[in-house]
Amino acid sequence: MERTLFDDDHELFRRSVADWITADVVPHYLQWETAGLAPRSLFADAGSHGFLGMAVPQSLGGGGSDDFRFNVVLAEELAAAGIGGAGLGLTLHNDITTPYFLTYCDEDQRNRWLPGIASGELITAVAMTEPGIGSDLASMTTTAIRDGDHYVLSGSKTFITNGINADLVIVAAKTDPTQRHRGISLMVVEAGMAGFDRGRNLDKIGLHSQDTAELFFNDVEVPVANLLGDEGAGFGYLVSNLAQERLSIAVTGVATARAALGWTLEYAKERQAFGQGIGSFQNSRFVLAECHTEVEVAQAFVDQAIVALNAGSLTVEEAAMAKWWCTELQGRVVDRGVQLHGGYGYMTEYPIARAYADARVTTIYGGTTEIMKEIIGRSLGL
Amino acid sequence: MERTLFDDDHELFRRSVADWITADVVPHYLQWETAGLAPRSLFADAGSHGFLGMAVPQSLGGGGSDDFRFNVVLAEELAAAGIGGAGLGLTLHNDITTPYFLTYCDEDQRNRWLPGIASGELITAVAMTEPGIGSDLASMTTTAIRDGDHYVLSGSKTFITNGINADLVIVAAKTDPTQRHRGISLMVVEAGMAGFDRGRNLDKIGLHSQDTAELFFNDVEVPVANLLGDEGAGFGYLVSNLAQERLSIAVTGVATARAALGWTLEYAKERQAFGQGIGSFQNSRFVLAECHTEVEVAQAFVDQAIVALNAGSLTVEEAAMAKWWCTELQGRVVDRGVQLHGGYGYMTEYPIARAYADARVTTIYGGTTEIMKEIIGRSLGL
Amino acid sequence: MERTLFDDDHELFRRSVADWITADVVPHYLQWETAGLAPRSLFADAGSHGFLGMAVPQSLGGGGSDDFRFNVVLAEELAAAGIGGAGLGLTLHNDITTPYFLTYCDEDQRNRWLPGIASGELITAVAMTEPGIGSDLASMTTTAIRDGDHYVLSGSKTFITNGINADLVIVAAKTDPTQRHRGISLMVVEAGMAGFDRGRNLDKIGLHSQDTAELFFNDVEVPVANLLGDEGAGFGYLVSNLAQERLSIAVTGVATARAALGWTLEYAKERQAFGQGIGSFQNSRFVLAECHTEVEVAQAFVDQAIVALNAGSLTVEEAAMAKWWCTELQGRVVDRGVQLHGGYGYMTEYPIARAYADARVTTIYGGTTEIMKEIIGRSLGL
Amino acid sequence: MERTLFDDDHELFRRSVADWITADVVPHYLQWETAGLAPRSLFADAGSHGFLGMAVPQSLGGGGSDDFRFNVVLAEELAAAGIGGAGLGLTLHNDITTPYFLTYCDEDQRNRWLPGIASGELITAVAMTEPGIGSDLASMTTTAIRDGDHYVLSGSKTFITNGINADLVIVAAKTDPTQRHRGISLMVVEAGMAGFDRGRNLDKIGLHSQDTAELFFNDVEVPVANLLGDEGAGFGYLVSNLAQERLSIAVTGVATARAALGWTLEYAKERQAFGQGIGSFQNSRFVLAECHTEVEVAQAFVDQAIVALNAGSLTVEEAAMAKWWCTELQGRVVDRGVQLHGGYGYMTEYPIARAYADARVTTIYGGTTEIMKEIIGRSLGL
Repeated sequence: MERTLFDDDHELFRRSVADWITADVVPHYLQWETAGLAPRSLFADAGSHGFLGMAVPQSLGGGGSDDFRFNVVLAEELAAAGIGGAGLGLTLHNDITTPYFLTYCDEDQRNRWLPGIASGELITAVAMTEPGIGSDLASMTTTAIRDGDHYVLSGSKTFITNGINADLVIVAAKTDPTQRHRGISLMVVEAGMAGFDRGRNLDKIGLHSQDTAELFFNDVEVPVANLLGDEGAGFGYLVSNLAQERLSIAVTGVATARAALGWTLEYAKERQAFGQGIGSFQNSRFVLAECHTEVEVAQAFVDQAIVALNAGSLTVEEAAMAKWWCTELQGRVVDRGVQLHGGYGYMTEYPIARAYADARVTTIYGGTTEIMKEIIGRSLGL
Repeated sequence: MERTLFDDDHELFRRSVADWITADVVPHYLQWETAGLAPRSLFADAGSHGFLGMAVPQSLGGGGSDDFRFNVVLAEELAAAGIGGAGLGLTLHNDITTPYFLTYCDEDQRNRWLPGIASGELITAVAMTEPGIGSDLASMTTTAIRDGDHYVLSGSKTFITNGINADLVIVAAKTDPTQRHRGISLMVVEAGMAGFDRGRNLDKIGLHSQDTAELFFNDVEVPVANLLGDEGAGFGYLVSNLAQERLSIAVTGVATARAALGWTLEYAKERQAFGQGIGSFQNSRFVLAECHTEVEVAQAFVDQAIVALNAGSLTVEEAAMAKWWCTELQGRVVDRGVQLHGGYGYMTEYPIARAYADARVTTIYGGTTEIMKEIIGRSLGL
Repeated sequence: MERTLFDDDHELFRRSVADWITADVVPHYLQWETAGLAPRSLFADAGSHGFLGMAVPQSLGGGGSDDFRFNVVLAEELAAAGIGGAGLGLTLHNDITTPYFLTYCDEDQRNRWLPGIASGELITAVAMTEPGIGSDLASMTTTAIRDGDHYVLSGSKTFITNGINADLVIVAAKTDPTQRHRGISLMVVEAGMAGFDRGRNLDKIGLHSQDTAELFFNDVEVPVANLLGDEGAGFGYLVSNLAQERLSIAVTGVATARAALGWTLEYAKERQAFGQGIGSFQNSRFVLAECHTEVEVAQAFVDQAIVALNAGSLTVEEAAMAKWWCTELQGRVVDRGVQLHGGYGYMTEYPIARAYADARVTTIYGGTTEIMKEIIGRSLGL
Repeated sequence: MERTLFDDDHELFRRSVADWITADVVPHYLQWETAGLAPRSLFADAGSHGFLGMAVPQSLGGGGSDDFRFNVVLAEELAAAGIGGAGLGLTLHNDITTPYFLTYCDEDQRNRWLPGIASGELITAVAMTEPGIGSDLASMTTTAIRDGDHYVLSGSKTFITNGINADLVIVAAKTDPTQRHRGISLMVVEAGMAGFDRGRNLDKIGLHSQDTAELFFNDVEVPVANLLGDEGAGFGYLVSNLAQERLSIAVTGVATARAALGWTLEYAKERQAFGQGIGSFQNSRFVLAECHTEVEVAQAFVDQAIVALNAGSLTVEEAAMAKWWCTELQGRVVDRGVQLHGGYGYMTEYPIARAYADARVTTIYGGTTEIMKEIIGRSLGL
């Protein structure tokens, strides 16, 4: 159904994003996929066009608007162009890490970091997960022990998006290792700090133009001035942005499903088999009708959730519903798209193939489908 | 998510409907289920409370509002109370047959029929389907041959909801049997007309308090004054109300799923097994979280569609999406609800069991899921 | 694929069963469905043809063969004829209750009961489940307190198949209420014993010709001579026959799915829509191809399990796999069959409609799908 | 259930295969995955151990047994070791291309080619598919026009497994371009023939150690002595081996699913989350129980089909059922395995991740799931 979510400002922004992607991103994308990451310049380029830090105050070089719909437009256009690998770094930067800086930086930190975040000169990442702990953050073993005016940070983190390119990494560590949730603090580790090493760029099923890495901290001396917010309050901070993080993933999920449907529809109309377009077989028609319905239904829900997020009323449960439903939907639709493409669907030069490989982690990162169902189930009193 | 669809008028109407159902319908419902139909007085009772003919002009005894949200409220409350069998007769009367009378009656017909339709003294039905033709209306063999000031109507119709109780039956018949779609006209057959016979109340899997019958027309002389609209225009008329008909079924689908979730949740919290509430098993929690998510997602879409219907912009494809998605959802949720109820879920004294038996036909009537996918697929250019 | 399971004896038996069903059961079946139970004479009739107690020694009037394939043949022919309601009473008698008598009766009990079991003059039932305890048998509250040469039996049981017709009911009760599993004993309650009352025949979604009832025991004096096996050993006895019980349900599941596929195939070939047989639509063809594949795949597994049961090597886990997989398959296939039948699929005069209503409880009785998965999961070391 | 398919010879062969894989294949496998193909020496090594050409006569260096169970053992061990990429080249060589040589070679051709096929010095491929024709072979445009003692072969083929490594490529081409099926002949193109060029090794979602290429034929002069069988009989030849080809894919499908289950089970038992093994969560237990059941059920069917193939009675429909069911199963099980592995499931150093990426094409190659359903549906008379 016609979406009623956006006004003219968003549509202008959309056109501007789409033009940039066509001109400056798509032509290089397959090289980045082969290279295993996007160049750092992608961020500076995006920043120069106003596609980063839309929520950063204008006085610090940002867009000055906390209207999440601009983030949505960016995410949708990245998905539509089939460049979700490199695109993930951008949406993560905007939707997931920037809010920590906006909410928890003190004045000094704001001035140090927000301009670079908005310009794209400072690429950001957030490091929560550790090898072997999955979603159970309270079990983390990375420690940051106060020693005078700095913390001594030791441990390792894994599956860190933007892990190779990041200039600023928000690291969750236990400043009080005797505690579980209450011992966790967030601090910003900067590229080049002694003892901060990056592992290799991990080999993944997909998202090949997205750098994902293990990070190692060997007695890194992190100045107390890099602490975000209060010591021991980190777990609460991590939780506080979850609704937006998960909605961000859901938005990309639906948009990717919509894109996959579009590519498949185009293919099905063009491609002939046994003397007829393959889209004219009833099975193909039904599959595409099902995908179209699913996309439209999910979009209605996500759009409602975006409005709620902007209004400050989106609950953690609602975001969890959007997250698992839309990423599972993404998986279903890209899978069916691959099938209708036949052998071509398995060749990574086709966007449907890359979308398939990229999609598989979306039901895992940002909280697995199973964790989402736990959250929702508990909200039902179970 | 919080629904933003309704205003105070609808909520007042909702309370009024709910009170009536609790007081006047629920206490008798199981008897009607056993009897195989609801009494005719159900309609007069509903009418006396203002729950019929909301769209009929006030001058003719109706509510004077074409706001479909009142219809939605009624449908939702009937579903919530677990009385979907008898309830179907009411929603059919309001959502599906009344629009024909409102749109195609001439002045004389309006005065003859609309007051009774609004008061519930005239129960309505629509007779399209014939034995063996399914959705292929153009193949119908019932004929109505003009003979002076009447038509001679011959043929039979089947699966007619309200078939036993109906006073006014809109019958689709070929006034020109040499034509397919263009030969079809609609005319109103009244109870008591000579040659109009009703077959037995059909034995169905569920919907036991809903009368469904085969109707026989043996040279029934239907006055030309009972023709609805223009001769030969019937197929177009049948199509013109499809969006509302299918949305009506979708609304009930989601509302029934929501009710089923509620009954199951309640059961799962109360019932113990192996020393714990069965809802506390992770599998039960996940199942209920999934059902809750699905209901919320579908509701967002249906609510958007209701707004579009009121605005006159709901397309046939969008209604088709709502119809198949929400009835299939209804089926999934009631099925899972039965399973979580264990043996009790199979006993028809439990509302979940009746909802299961009732639900099975919803993916068939009003256009099967397969027909809906055809419509959607074709709208994609396939 | 061609089944290699049966030899000529089984095929002769199959023909004999099929002839009997056609001549003596099918003509009355719809009346029994309306009446809510089959007449007691069904059992005597089956017994007179040699279709009961095939495993009872010939000296006691039985078939003298413990080859489960005869039971399989009976179950398959009942399913094929679409008479699964009344049929359930027969397969329960043969596959589920008779083994208790064969294994645990002492000499005296064998002579008292086995001839009637084989002749069908003694209809059997087994009463384990109580209101509110589901699968958690150790929580049962029915007690049987020894008092001289009898037990005083008090409590109630529910969902008892053959509950109205049964002459002999194996009742599980706690002879030592201080214990959980170890306090349970089995004893045979006979029709007519003082204090033994039957509740009403329960209203179910389907299986209408199968009597299912609640049973009440008000200080019933059950002679110690009616104890089956050892006091306190009842739980072990209940468990010992589980593999056969569940395989029996699986056999009927696949056979019913096969029958449903056959009815639907026939319907799809005959029925026309839009100028072509509905089976010639690609969607119908795919649906039926999927059902056919699923039936064949499941049959291979069930046949392997039957061979294993006869060899004494079928494990509880394997039976659990067969049970849940085949009953869920049954549900899927009958559901798709209903859909392809359109409106007729909802009318209980059609066997597909009855099969749909009958099927819904099969994933619940004999151990729910969820319990089966627990059993299998635990066998994997989880 | 215990498989009854194999005898001691097969188990000895299995141990020999497994030892070789462990010692000589697994240590190099990840390098081959990175390199994008396995070295040619893999075939010679396999051949030297007797793992190629088991069906080739002993006099020509083969195993002298047409018992397909040896092929099955090889396929199962390759799957179990998680080396399905490179492994595919071997099973294709044995199960799919070698039969053409065995059946259609004349005496001279047998002596030229079979020894190398059995020793692994001649790697084989079969080239049917062309860009844009998918399964519709009769539309192929590659031509081979007779000119004296050779054919002039022109055209291109795509998605050719072993396309880079192959020494002998069975090419399907139209020797009579005026015909559809009847114009097709098969001929063997040898590496090094003038005008025979290989395109690049195609970039695929998975199967990275398997070379898949486009092949170009620019007026290649193929000696008439390289024609397989009769001119114009090629389509029949391509069809004649389909049952074995598809069963081969099905065998690998089930074996891969079984392997994926094993890896996931191991992971689920070791990995802790929230203070308990993740396998001890009920959801994980149910997922693994479902996968285990599905694998066991499918195995029973496939084993039956293997016996039938050896007996010469496996029909095309039965092979089609095995093919689509087992590859779809493979997809389901690896997908669920990835999910239970969490983030690690997306990292290609884990076998489950590679299995996921590898699996996606199995429902496409060798005849898509949709083609399989067409075949089965038609065999039902639809």
